[in-house]
Amino acid sequence: MSIKTISILGSTGSIGCSTLDVIEKTNNNFSNGIGDVKFEIVALTANRAHRQLIEQAKKFKPKMVVLVEKEHGDELISELKPLGIKISFGSDALIEAAQMQSDMIMAAIVGAAGLGPTIEAAKRGANILLANKECLVCAGEVFLKTAKQNGAKILPVDSEHNAIFQVLQNPNEVEKLILTASGGPFLNTNIDNLYNVTPEQAVAHPNWQMGRKISVDCASLMNKGLELIEASMLFEMPEDRIDVLIHPQSIIHSMVSYKDGSFLAQLGTPDMRIPISYCMGWPNRLQIDSPRLNLAQIRNLEFHAPDNNRFPALGLARLAMRLGGSATTILNAANEVAVNEFLNCKLPFMQIPTIVCKILDMAQGNGNIVALNDLSEVFNADEWARAKTFEELSK
Amino acid sequence: MSIKTISILGSTGSIGCSTLDVIEKTNNNFSNGIGDVKFEIVALTANRAHRQLIEQAKKFKPKMVVLVEKEHGDELISELKPLGIKISFGSDALIEAAQMQSDMIMAAIVGAAGLGPTIEAAKRGANILLANKECLVCAGEVFLKTAKQNGAKILPVDSEHNAIFQVLQNPNEVEKLILTASGGPFLNTNIDNLYNVTPEQAVAHPNWQMGRKISVDCASLMNKGLELIEASMLFEMPEDRIDVLIHPQSIIHSMVSYKDGSFLAQLGTPDMRIPISYCMGWPNRLQIDSPRLNLAQIRNLEFHAPDNNRFPALGLARLAMRLGGSATTILNAANEVAVNEFLNCKLPFMQIPTIVCKILDMAQGNGNIVALNDLSEVFNADEWARAKTFEELSK
Repeated sequence: MSIKTISILGSTGSIGCSTLDVIEKTNNNFSNGIGDVKFEIVALTANRAHRQLIEQAKKFKPKMVVLVEKEHGDELISELKPLGIKISFGSDALIEAAQMQSDMIMAAIVGAAGLGPTIEAAKRGANILLANKECLVCAGEVFLKTAKQNGAKILPVDSEHNAIFQVLQNPNEVEKLILTASGGPFLNTNIDNLYNVTPEQAVAHPNWQMGRKISVDCASLMNKGLELIEASMLFEMPEDRIDVLIHPQSIIHSMVSYKDGSFLAQLGTPDMRIPISYCMGWPNRLQIDSPRLNLAQIRNLEFHAPDNNRFPALGLARLAMRLGGSATTILNAANEVAVNEFLNCKLPFMQIPTIVCKILDMAQGNGNIVALNDLSEVFNADEWARAKTFEELSK
Repeated sequence: MSIKTISILGSTGSIGCSTLDVIEKTNNNFSNGIGDVKFEIVALTANRAHRQLIEQAKKFKPKMVVLVEKEHGDELISELKPLGIKISFGSDALIEAAQMQSDMIMAAIVGAAGLGPTIEAAKRGANILLANKECLVCAGEVFLKTAKQNGAKILPVDSEHNAIFQVLQNPNEVEKLILTASGGPFLNTNIDNLYNVTPEQAVAHPNWQMGRKISVDCASLMNKGLELIEASMLFEMPEDRIDVLIHPQSIIHSMVSYKDGSFLAQLGTPDMRIPISYCMGWPNRLQIDSPRLNLAQIRNLEFHAPDNNRFPALGLARLAMRLGGSATTILNAANEVAVNEFLNCKLPFMQIPTIVCKILDMAQGNGNIVALNDLSEVFNADEWARAKTFEELSK
């Protein structure tokens, strides 16, 4: 029997809610004598979904809540203070939440805002349940070094990396990592029609429910490009030993191939509670009672190679990986700006990779691809790329 | 760097030849500075393929060879004695070969003849690379007890059990084992046409090259039934927690599902050198340079539930598992006799399960389902079932 403490950075997002769902069910199982682990929540944080945060706090009784945008802070104070819950506001409070003692931290804040608090949790050697992409994509070396120095274990939540993590045995015997990709909503869209797709078409992901930004990245395959970078960082694998395989059903979540020709894979329904719970329970598994994968019912799993002409983002990510240092930070920042412009109907879909490519070229030409030694250098590279992208877009 | 010693019981069969191929390539790699393990062969044994045995012995220079049928023994003596190789004849010599000191033994003798020598190797605590079905199907409890008492590690060579072995993590967290089955050559044959199939049609397996008896078992799905029994014994899993999934491409070799909804699978081309080498190198992997699985090229993996009406063998195997004790021994013996009659064109294909069912019923009625405590009891049950099957067939 054990009690584990957890903080959830970004508790009102999709990953945060699934994490709370796993906690609720695991604790119920514990009460009912099924399973021997129980979770206690130290901190919950949200950006601006104050009502949702209040409901979560009432239900799960954390020691602390953080609301970054303090606009409705008075409601938190009046409803949660009487429960003895500490309440803080602003982005500095995220650091405070990350620093509070806990066995593990769910790093589910989207974007660069997740960087600082996650690294803070790494500094105190907590298990990092990593759902934030930027830690590895923008600040990979800084983040991994901090984690290593402080004995923080990184557990990848992303279904692909989680799959690899589950079937990664002796790293010296690995031949390749194979990241699967659903191919997104435009998998079968003619390239000529890709120029006119709308944000609504782009965010309609066939298999997973996700935020708008990441849904667009799935549609352009940039999400898979960012995952390539993450996999390379996380598993210390060079770019040319990570393949991408289109697999529209999202059942095989990823694979590892070994030097004897064996491929090991993790499969499951597209339910994020599975990888989340794997990280939460690691090295043990929690009981999760979601519907089980039924391949006899699914009948067919399809696979094909990615089309690099229609989806140039993969090639861009590979280029950035080969360049190393700030290149992946710049790729990510340029993409974020471009996707935002697309979502605001100010940029055609197919221009997203074009603009990212231009900014990467520019960075190479200007000597902006450099090693990043600390977070301030990461933020500088990120800002440079954002500014350049805006500049380019306003031309 | 390490040198490992191995004996191959059944070196001239399909598994034996693949094992020698793995040894040859591994030793070449060792000589070329790739890989750090080298194999030395202690004993090679064959039933009657004397020419092939002689060629193998000349090439691999074992300490000893055994030929069970001594008819052409003089050729062995004249060609191998000058090389300093010890030569023995008869089935007792198999025991002798199994007793000779070696790190591991490839147990690839087909049928009940493999039982005695394999148990002998278990008695001296060798790693048992298990390709013989009868050890688990006919003598499971006796065999496993012997192995456990003497610290002999059992490493399953069969592609399905090897797949499970590769992805079996904490056994307490396993929900189910999922054995995949190609479905054999009659997967899509109408049930009415199954009555008239010929031995040549039955032995034409779509994915694997195997012996005639096992090919017929694949066609009737009895092979999968025997594998259910093996899996249950090997992984201590009750019958109702092992599923069979038809997967015609034989790419996913089997899966393990866990209590969190994760399914772990081993995939690969249908090449027995992969599971063989896994057992040989265990707990490390050997470098095997066979063509790699390319799912983008294969494009489609299909799955469906087995049709129990067309293939009653699965249900019979499950019945035998539930009955326990000598039931699986009797199932196997009755099946072996019936398949042989089919191969001799004396029994229609669909009568194979019918006769097996009849013998099982008879055993139940006569109180012949009993616990088996040693090999002599195993052989008694086996003989009883064979005699009864012949009796029944001659009616």
